[in-house]
Amino acid sequence: MSPMKVLILGIDGYLGWPLSLHLASRGHHIVGVDNFLRRRLVKEENSWSAIPILDMDKRCLLFEDMFGEKLWFYESDIVNYQAVETILKDTKPDAIVHFGEIPSAPYSMRDVYACNLTHENNVIGTLNVLHAMRDIVPNTHLIKLGTMGEYGTPNIDIAEGYFEIEYRGRKDILPFPKQAGSFYHLTKVHDTNNIIFACKVWGLRSTDIQQGPVYSTKIDIMKNDERLATRFDFDAVWGTVVNRYCAEAVIEHPLTPFGKGSQKRGFLPLRDSMQCLTIAVENPPEKGEYRTFNQFEGVYDVTYLAKKVQKVGRRLGLKININNLENPRKEREEHYYNPDHKNLLQLGYKPTGDMEKELEITMRDLLRHKDRILTKKNVLIPDIRWSGERKKSKFLGEK
Amino acid sequence: MSPMKVLILGIDGYLGWPLSLHLASRGHHIVGVDNFLRRRLVKEENSWSAIPILDMDKRCLLFEDMFGEKLWFYESDIVNYQAVETILKDTKPDAIVHFGEIPSAPYSMRDVYACNLTHENNVIGTLNVLHAMRDIVPNTHLIKLGTMGEYGTPNIDIAEGYFEIEYRGRKDILPFPKQAGSFYHLTKVHDTNNIIFACKVWGLRSTDIQQGPVYSTKIDIMKNDERLATRFDFDAVWGTVVNRYCAEAVIEHPLTPFGKGSQKRGFLPLRDSMQCLTIAVENPPEKGEYRTFNQFEGVYDVTYLAKKVQKVGRRLGLKININNLENPRKEREEHYYNPDHKNLLQLGYKPTGDMEKELEITMRDLLRHKDRILTKKNVLIPDIRWSGERKKSKFLGEK
Repeated sequence: MSPMKVLILGIDGYLGWPLSLHLASRGHHIVGVDNFLRRRLVKEENSWSAIPILDMDKRCLLFEDMFGEKLWFYESDIVNYQAVETILKDTKPDAIVHFGEIPSAPYSMRDVYACNLTHENNVIGTLNVLHAMRDIVPNTHLIKLGTMGEYGTPNIDIAEGYFEIEYRGRKDILPFPKQAGSFYHLTKVHDTNNIIFACKVWGLRSTDIQQGPVYSTKIDIMKNDERLATRFDFDAVWGTVVNRYCAEAVIEHPLTPFGKGSQKRGFLPLRDSMQCLTIAVENPPEKGEYRTFNQFEGVYDVTYLAKKVQKVGRRLGLKININNLENPRKEREEHYYNPDHKNLLQLGYKPTGDMEKELEITMRDLLRHKDRILTKKNVLIPDIRWSGERKKSKFLGEK
Repeated sequence: MSPMKVLILGIDGYLGWPLSLHLASRGHHIVGVDNFLRRRLVKEENSWSAIPILDMDKRCLLFEDMFGEKLWFYESDIVNYQAVETILKDTKPDAIVHFGEIPSAPYSMRDVYACNLTHENNVIGTLNVLHAMRDIVPNTHLIKLGTMGEYGTPNIDIAEGYFEIEYRGRKDILPFPKQAGSFYHLTKVHDTNNIIFACKVWGLRSTDIQQGPVYSTKIDIMKNDERLATRFDFDAVWGTVVNRYCAEAVIEHPLTPFGKGSQKRGFLPLRDSMQCLTIAVENPPEKGEYRTFNQFEGVYDVTYLAKKVQKVGRRLGLKININNLENPRKEREEHYYNPDHKNLLQLGYKPTGDMEKELEITMRDLLRHKDRILTKKNVLIPDIRWSGERKKSKFLGEK
């Protein structure tokens, strides 16, 4: 594997920063872009990362210490086309990993302003990347972070991107129908449709990662050096379910599945996400090829996950209850769910598979920052409803 | 049928203006919004409407003369949320007909600026309408103009919006997969996905019109009063295929099918479009219901249509050749095409069906403005290629 130059859009985020470390440890050269929008938006919700994180300039210095070469960083906004053009002309990357999107379903449902900002940031940002790739680096591989949430929860198996169907006696291979469950998820569907088209008409190559929710605080290379930590959001707007459970656990707040708690999704730990993304980077598709990877380790329902966190937390001496909350979302709470995820396994993905160990690492890391979670305890309970109301969810009763 | 208050977004356009006359003649009350972006963008391409059109203030005076009541007009931009909010609070319409979108495939493929403007104008405008409806007029019926081009040309029959499929032994009713052929068409797909979601989570009601290309200069109520004329675009960016053929015919310019000319689409004359849209307005869906009407009279290939125009033109004494052009688009030129269109027929749509008569009316109207087409002859040949190049298409040879 010869070293590649990888441009990471959104390098300051939960996935962006560890991916830069992971790829650099494998000999790749890293260029990063961020506009720090995530830091600002989390502050706007009166929240913060449970684990303190360094500013990007300090991260760059650390990176250089570790790997003996610079991380080239641009503080820049990909919604500005000129900026994207300049960066691609300067750097000519072999691969672009695109995390430069606003990733929150509740935020996108907060109000028309947040919905539109999510659309503009995500959809226009991606269109700029596609146009600049066409004109400057048409052979570069775009690895775009989508979400399993693009598919929704249909009553049939979920294919990876495309599926062959027979309808009224004729056959075709068509994009799998999408039924996204929030405006955020919809922006990812819009991106997917735009990327498929760009690959078709401009011969670009892209891997669309439909990723399930990621959990855990770390990957091996971070060891116990907290200067290397990545952000960890636990509030109801920016945190995802397993990470939120872990944060609730360490302050002995009840774990809070939404509604009946039988919603199923595909989950994976941070280290598996890094492994999968690296496989995507190191195995580019053909020119003109658009491919989809459904990226998760296994399918679990959110009550099963709460019980896992409870079990591991009790082992750490924590007193943990599970109290379901009124579901602020509109979603099916009981449903069929069977998505394919063969493509990454075929390329060599080895799931780490030890969820309890991962949860223990996460909770041990969070226990050191218990006070930061306690201070912001009031942001744990969701108050953005899919209906448009702002009203805190109430507990439904204890389990 | 009791009179309704109908808000027409994009009332100054090709469909908006005749629809206001048609609905008013049936006793409905009309409110209109336009930002005149279409007039500006056509000028930007150095083109104009073949038939001169009045300014909106004069149109409003004429309207009042004809119907004895005001057309309430707002010069406003729906990309501005405050504007949409104000208009809905002021007017509380029973129905909103949404034509307020940039409707050109070539324009959206011109460059990143035009692609992004098409996305912002169309997608953000529609999101603003949906949010304002939720908060101000949640029972109002949204009639949204989409396009048959959202579906692309799959190798199976095209359903109206949803279809039942069986996959690996399980069944579900899912949105029909979309394979749009330009960034413009993609914005309509994005809108469709956003509207489906808004109906589901907010209980809005909407009719999504997947309309084929419309042709012809007039509807009956316009008689021969040219002050009532609607715009008629014939350039390669803003004109659609049959209207362009008619404009070419009257100046004895060769008719210009793209590529092999065997691309099939569903077409309809302007009077059928008005009839169908009126059926949609006067037969609202249930609260929370999202429905799709595939709106066209019949499926034809673009060579068949050229020959029809040639035949009618020759009857008018015009010398007309057909010269195919290099196809500036990336599209299948030979393909299966069998879209359903039952919903409107079931609600009473009676296709006028006499294409030759419609083409004759159109060419007679255009003949009076032959000079305006001749003056802008240079905009007839497309120079925006789907590849990103700017290069005029060459003739492939005579038929």
